[in-house]
Amino acid sequence: MFRKILKILPALAVILGVGVMLGAGLGMAEEPTVAGNAAAIEEKSVAMDTVWTLIAGMLVMFMQAGFAMVETGFTRAKNACNIMMKNLLDFTVGAVIYWAVGFGIMFGAGNLFFGTSGFFLADTGSTFASLDWSLVPLACKYFFQMVFAATAATIVSGAMAERTKFSAYLVYSMVISALIYPVVGHWIWGGGWLAEIGMWDFAGSTVVHSTGAWMALIGAIFLGPRLGKYRPDGSSNAIPGHNIPLATLGVFILWFGWYGFNPGSTMAAVPGIAHIAMTTTIAAAVGVNAAMVTSWVMFSKPDISMALNGGLAGLVAITAGCAFVSPGSAALIGLVAGVLVVLSVVTFDKVFHIDDPVGAVSVHGVCGAWGTLAVGLFAQDIFSPGTTGNGLLFGGGIKLLMSQLAGVGSVMLWCFICGVVLFSAIKATIGLRVSKEEELRGLDIDEHGMEAYSGFQIFTTE
Amino acid sequence: MFRKILKILPALAVILGVGVMLGAGLGMAEEPTVAGNAAAIEEKSVAMDTVWTLIAGMLVMFMQAGFAMVETGFTRAKNACNIMMKNLLDFTVGAVIYWAVGFGIMFGAGNLFFGTSGFFLADTGSTFASLDWSLVPLACKYFFQMVFAATAATIVSGAMAERTKFSAYLVYSMVISALIYPVVGHWIWGGGWLAEIGMWDFAGSTVVHSTGAWMALIGAIFLGPRLGKYRPDGSSNAIPGHNIPLATLGVFILWFGWYGFNPGSTMAAVPGIAHIAMTTTIAAAVGVNAAMVTSWVMFSKPDISMALNGGLAGLVAITAGCAFVSPGSAALIGLVAGVLVVLSVVTFDKVFHIDDPVGAVSVHGVCGAWGTLAVGLFAQDIFSPGTTGNGLLFGGGIKLLMSQLAGVGSVMLWCFICGVVLFSAIKATIGLRVSKEEELRGLDIDEHGMEAYSGFQIFTTE
Amino acid sequence: MFRKILKILPALAVILGVGVMLGAGLGMAEEPTVAGNAAAIEEKSVAMDTVWTLIAGMLVMFMQAGFAMVETGFTRAKNACNIMMKNLLDFTVGAVIYWAVGFGIMFGAGNLFFGTSGFFLADTGSTFASLDWSLVPLACKYFFQMVFAATAATIVSGAMAERTKFSAYLVYSMVISALIYPVVGHWIWGGGWLAEIGMWDFAGSTVVHSTGAWMALIGAIFLGPRLGKYRPDGSSNAIPGHNIPLATLGVFILWFGWYGFNPGSTMAAVPGIAHIAMTTTIAAAVGVNAAMVTSWVMFSKPDISMALNGGLAGLVAITAGCAFVSPGSAALIGLVAGVLVVLSVVTFDKVFHIDDPVGAVSVHGVCGAWGTLAVGLFAQDIFSPGTTGNGLLFGGGIKLLMSQLAGVGSVMLWCFICGVVLFSAIKATIGLRVSKEEELRGLDIDEHGMEAYSGFQIFTTE
Repeated sequence: MFRKILKILPALAVILGVGVMLGAGLGMAEEPTVAGNAAAIEEKSVAMDTVWTLIAGMLVMFMQAGFAMVETGFTRAKNACNIMMKNLLDFTVGAVIYWAVGFGIMFGAGNLFFGTSGFFLADTGSTFASLDWSLVPLACKYFFQMVFAATAATIVSGAMAERTKFSAYLVYSMVISALIYPVVGHWIWGGGWLAEIGMWDFAGSTVVHSTGAWMALIGAIFLGPRLGKYRPDGSSNAIPGHNIPLATLGVFILWFGWYGFNPGSTMAAVPGIAHIAMTTTIAAAVGVNAAMVTSWVMFSKPDISMALNGGLAGLVAITAGCAFVSPGSAALIGLVAGVLVVLSVVTFDKVFHIDDPVGAVSVHGVCGAWGTLAVGLFAQDIFSPGTTGNGLLFGGGIKLLMSQLAGVGSVMLWCFICGVVLFSAIKATIGLRVSKEEELRGLDIDEHGMEAYSGFQIFTTE
Repeated sequence: MFRKILKILPALAVILGVGVMLGAGLGMAEEPTVAGNAAAIEEKSVAMDTVWTLIAGMLVMFMQAGFAMVETGFTRAKNACNIMMKNLLDFTVGAVIYWAVGFGIMFGAGNLFFGTSGFFLADTGSTFASLDWSLVPLACKYFFQMVFAATAATIVSGAMAERTKFSAYLVYSMVISALIYPVVGHWIWGGGWLAEIGMWDFAGSTVVHSTGAWMALIGAIFLGPRLGKYRPDGSSNAIPGHNIPLATLGVFILWFGWYGFNPGSTMAAVPGIAHIAMTTTIAAAVGVNAAMVTSWVMFSKPDISMALNGGLAGLVAITAGCAFVSPGSAALIGLVAGVLVVLSVVTFDKVFHIDDPVGAVSVHGVCGAWGTLAVGLFAQDIFSPGTTGNGLLFGGGIKLLMSQLAGVGSVMLWCFICGVVLFSAIKATIGLRVSKEEELRGLDIDEHGMEAYSGFQIFTTE
Repeated sequence: MFRKILKILPALAVILGVGVMLGAGLGMAEEPTVAGNAAAIEEKSVAMDTVWTLIAGMLVMFMQAGFAMVETGFTRAKNACNIMMKNLLDFTVGAVIYWAVGFGIMFGAGNLFFGTSGFFLADTGSTFASLDWSLVPLACKYFFQMVFAATAATIVSGAMAERTKFSAYLVYSMVISALIYPVVGHWIWGGGWLAEIGMWDFAGSTVVHSTGAWMALIGAIFLGPRLGKYRPDGSSNAIPGHNIPLATLGVFILWFGWYGFNPGSTMAAVPGIAHIAMTTTIAAAVGVNAAMVTSWVMFSKPDISMALNGGLAGLVAITAGCAFVSPGSAALIGLVAGVLVVLSVVTFDKVFHIDDPVGAVSVHGVCGAWGTLAVGLFAQDIFSPGTTGNGLLFGGGIKLLMSQLAGVGSVMLWCFICGVVLFSAIKATIGLRVSKEEELRGLDIDEHGMEAYSGFQIFTTE
C-alpha cells in the first residue's frame, strides 16, 4: 500500500531540495565527503534563509489586517465596509500588478531610474542582479517585496477615507503598485541613483512609508476635507473613530507584523536579526510613551489614539536605521518620533486644514522622513560595518546626512509630481469624490449596498 | 551560583538534541571529522524541518480564529456566542479525539481504506510509514495534522449556523474528527486507494475543504433554512451579517494562516515553499478581484462579502495544486474560483433554497472540487518532478484528470453517506435543531445564558 | 550601476554573519575543509536558533493583543479605551524599563536573590552567565525575555479593571517590570536560590503567570469591588462583558502566542519543541472541554466565558511542565486546571467577594500554582533526561514536589509583600482608585476624554 509513497520519495527529495540530507536521513549509504558536506551546508543555508524570509513576508502580509483595523476603527461606522474593501483590494490588485509589472520596474535590469525587464518575473539569469545579495529563490524575493508594495499602497486609504470613490481608489492602487512605488524602490533598493550616491534605507522608512504618505497627502488635498470637518469659523471639528478596540488591535497587529518588516529585510537567516528586533522594539515602545506624555501635556489627558500613533511613528522612524543604530539611538529616534507625530497631527489639522482622518501623513510621511534623516545622524559603523559608516553624531561628518536628505527630498518631489498628475487625471475622468448625499449617508450603503453593523443602533455624526 | 545550570548543560544538550553543535559552541575540544560534520548537518536539518513545520502548524491553528470571526461576522449578533463556542469546541474536542483515534485511522498502518493502529500515537516503528517521507518527530506530525483535522471540522459550523443545537454539534464534531475526515485522509495521504490510483491533493482542497463542505451541505439540508430565510412566495430573504469588520479580519487571519497550510504541507524546510507561497498569493488575490468584478456586474455594486469569499475561494482552489502549477495557472485557477463562488452562492440560495449563512459549501466544497480537478488540467512536471506529471492542458493526457475526478467523486459520496447517517442519528436521538422560540430569541440566551454584546442596543431581524 | 551593491557584499556577509556560506554560495573559490565545515555548521546553527527564538518572541509579543482583547471583551464598553491603554502602556513602559534595569536584575551576575549588573545590557563577557546555555545573541535573549516580562505585567490589568487610576497603573507597571518580576525570575531562571534547590518551571507557570496573578490579587483587594458588584444582602451581581467575540478572538490570539511562549523557551531550534507544542495543545484543549462540562453541570448551560478561561487555565498549567511530561499527563493537568478554574472563579467571587472582572487570579494564579506543583507529580525523566528526574507519580519520590511547593509558596509570599508595600504606597500618594462619579460614567471619558464606540447606542450598567 505504501508502494506509491516510497516510489516517489527520491523524486520528492530532489524537487524539494532535500537531496543530500534525506539520503543521510534514510541511512542511504554513500560515504560523506568534505565537498559533499560543504554542498549540503550551502543547500541547507539557502533553505533556512527561505524559511526566515518567507515567514517574515507572511508577517508583513498580516499587516494588511492591521491597517484595515486601524483605519476602520479611527473612522465612522457608516464607512467601515468601504474602508475594509479598499484595504482588501489595494492588496489584491497590487499583488497581481506588482507580479506583472512592478517587480520588474523595481528590481529588473534597466537604468538608474527604473528597471526595464523582468515582467511576470521573467529572468534571464542576470535580470535581477540587484537582488543577488540574497540567496533565496526568486519566488521568495517576489513574495517578500510584494507585501512591501502592498504596504505602501494601503497607507493612502487612511488619509483619503470616508469620501473617496471606490472606483477612483482602484485606479490609484494600480498605478502606485505598477509604477510610483517601484520607481522609488529602484532608486534606493534596485541599484538606482540614490543607492549610487550612498543613501541608506534599510527596511523602507522612505521607500515604503514616505512614498505611501506623500501620495496620501496629495490625495487628501485633492479631495478636500470631509463634510463638517471644518466649521465656517475655521475651527476644526473632531470626528471620533467608531471602534477604538478595533484600532488598538490593528496597532498590535501592525507592531507584530513589523517584526517581519524590519528584521526580515535581511532576506537571510542571520543572528543580526536580533539586533534589528531589539532596536525596533525600543523605538516603538519609546514612541508610545513619548506620544502619550506629549498628549497628556498638550490636552491634559493621555490620549489613546495619540499613544497608538506614537507606536506607529516609532516603528516607521526606526525602519530606515534599525540595522545601523544602537539601542540607545533607537530610543532617541523613537522619542523624537513620538513627540513629532502629535505635533504634526495637530499642525496638519488645525494649521493647514488638511483632513487626514487617521494621521497617515504624520505617521508615515513626517516620521518616515525623520527616520531616514536619523540614519545620517545616528548610524554607527560597528553595527553594519562597510555599509553606512558613521553618521554626523558619531564623527562621520555631514556626507551621509546629505545623501539621506537627497533621498527624502527627491522621493517627496517624485510623489508630489505623480500625485498631482494621477489625482488630476482621476478627478477629470471618473471623479475622485463621492456626492454630498452619499457622504452623509455613508459610503457603505451607496458604494457597496450594505451596512457594517446590521442590527446595531448607530447615530452617525454629520 | 551557576553550578546547577552548568551541571545540567550537558544533559540539556542531549535532550534538546543540540549535542554536536553545543559541544562546538562551548569550545569543548573534539577534533571535527567528516562523519561528525555529516551527522551534525543531518541533525540540524531535522531541527530546521521541525521549526518550519511547527510554525506552519501554528499558523494553521490560528485559522481557527479566522473561521470564528468570519462566521460570526456574517451572521446575527444574537447568535454570536453560540458560533464562537462551536468554533472553539470543535477545535478542542477534535484535538483530543484526533490524538486518541483520528491520527491512527488516517496515517496508521492498516488497509487501503483506513488505518487500524497508532491510536494515542502508539508507534511500533513502522506504524506511521505513510509519513516516513517527512523527517520531523512524530509529535510534530501530530501537531501539523491535528490542526488540519480541526480545519475540516470547523468548516461545517458556518453552514449550520444560527439554528443548530449545541449538543448536537458536539456529537458531530467528535465523529468527523475521529472517523469521517481521517478516512478521507487515509485514502489520499495515508497510502490509501486514491493515492494508489494516482490522485494528488497537495495540501487538501479535497481532503480538508471538500470533506468539511460536503458534511456542511448535508447538515444544512437536514436542518432546513433559518426562520424567515425564504418567504412564502419562494423568494430569498437576505439576512445580513452583524459585523463586517470582524468578518474581514477573519478573512485576513485565514489568508495569513493559509501560508502555514499550503507551504507548510512540505513538512520540510525547503526552498520550494516559496513557490507555493507565490501561487497561493496569486490565486487568492485574483480570486478577490474576480469575485468583486462578478458581484459588480451581477448586483451593480462591488460586494464586500463576495470579495471576501472570493479570496477564500481562490485559497481553497489553489490548495490542491499549489506545488504543481505555475503562477500563471494559479491566476487562472483563482479567476475561475472567484467567479464560481459568486455563482454558486447565488445558485444554492435562490435555486436550491439551501440556507448556508456564510457560503461555506460554495467556498470549500465547490471551489475545493474545482481546485482538485484543476490539478488534472494545469499540473506541470517541472514544478514537482516525479509526482503529478503533466495535466491535460500541458500534454499529459486525461489520466490525471480522471484520477482527480475519482477523488472528488468518491470523497463526495463518502461524505454524503456519512452525513446522512450521522445527522439522521442525531436528529432521531438528541435532536438537531433548536426550538422556534429559541431561534427567534437567539441561541446565545437559551443555549449559553448570555449575550455577546451586553449593553449595546441591537435590533435583531426575525 | 550595481557597483555599490557588489562593493558592500563582503561587508554585509561579515556583519550579517553569513561569512562562510555566502562565499560558498557565490562560488568564491576556497577549497572546503573539515574545520571550515564544522565552523560553518556552528555558525548556521546559531542563526537557526536565533530565527526560532526571535519568531517565538514575536508570538509572545502578540499575546499583548490577546490580553487586551480578552480583558476588554469581558468588561464594560465604558471602560474599553482605558483597558486598551493600560495594556499598551504596561508593554511599552515595561519594554524600556526591563531593558534599563529588569534584565540585569533577572539574569545579571549578582547573588542568590537578585542580579546586580548588566543594566542596559552592558555585558563584560560573563555578566549573563546564567543564560550561557543558549547560544543566541544577547539582543535575542533580551527580546525573548522582555516579552515575558510584559506578559507578567499585563496580567494585573484584568483583575484591576474598571476602577483603577491610569497614573497609578503606570507606577505599578514600572515597579513590576523593574523589580518584582525580575527578582522572581532571578530565583528560578537566573541562577538563584530556587534553581539551587531544584525547583523547575520550564516556561513560567510561576515565574510569569503566578507572579502577575498574585500581584493582581493584592491589587484587587486594595481596590475593593466595582460599584454595584456586591449587593447589600451580600449576593454577587454578574457584570457581563460587552464584547464576547472580541474576548474569544483574544483567547485564540493568546493560544497562538503560547506556541511561542512554551516551545520557544528552549531558546534553541531543536526537535524537542514539537513535544512541547503537543503537550501544550492537549492541556489547553482538555482545559476548554473540562471547564465547559463543569460549567454545564454547575450552571445548567455551557458557559463561553468559562470555556475560554478553561483554555487559558490549561495553557497556564502546562507551562511549567510542558517539556517534562507525557501527552497523557498533559491531558490530566489540563483536566484539573479546567475544573479548578471554574471552582476558583466562583469561590473568589461568591465566597471571598474579591472582584476580579476577568478571572485573572484564578487563571494565572491558581492554575499557575497547580501547574508548577504538577511538575512534582507528573515529571518523567525520559522527556528531559538530567533535569527534573521523575515526579511523585512516576516513582521519583516527594523531593521534587517539595521543591516545587517551596517555589510556589515563596513567590506567593514575595508578591504579597511587594504588593502590599507597593499598593499601600500608591494609595497613600497619588491614589489607586478613581472617584465614584468617574467610575459610574466610565473611565474612558474622564481619564482619556473619549469613547470607545462613538455613535453606538450603549446602555451601561451601574
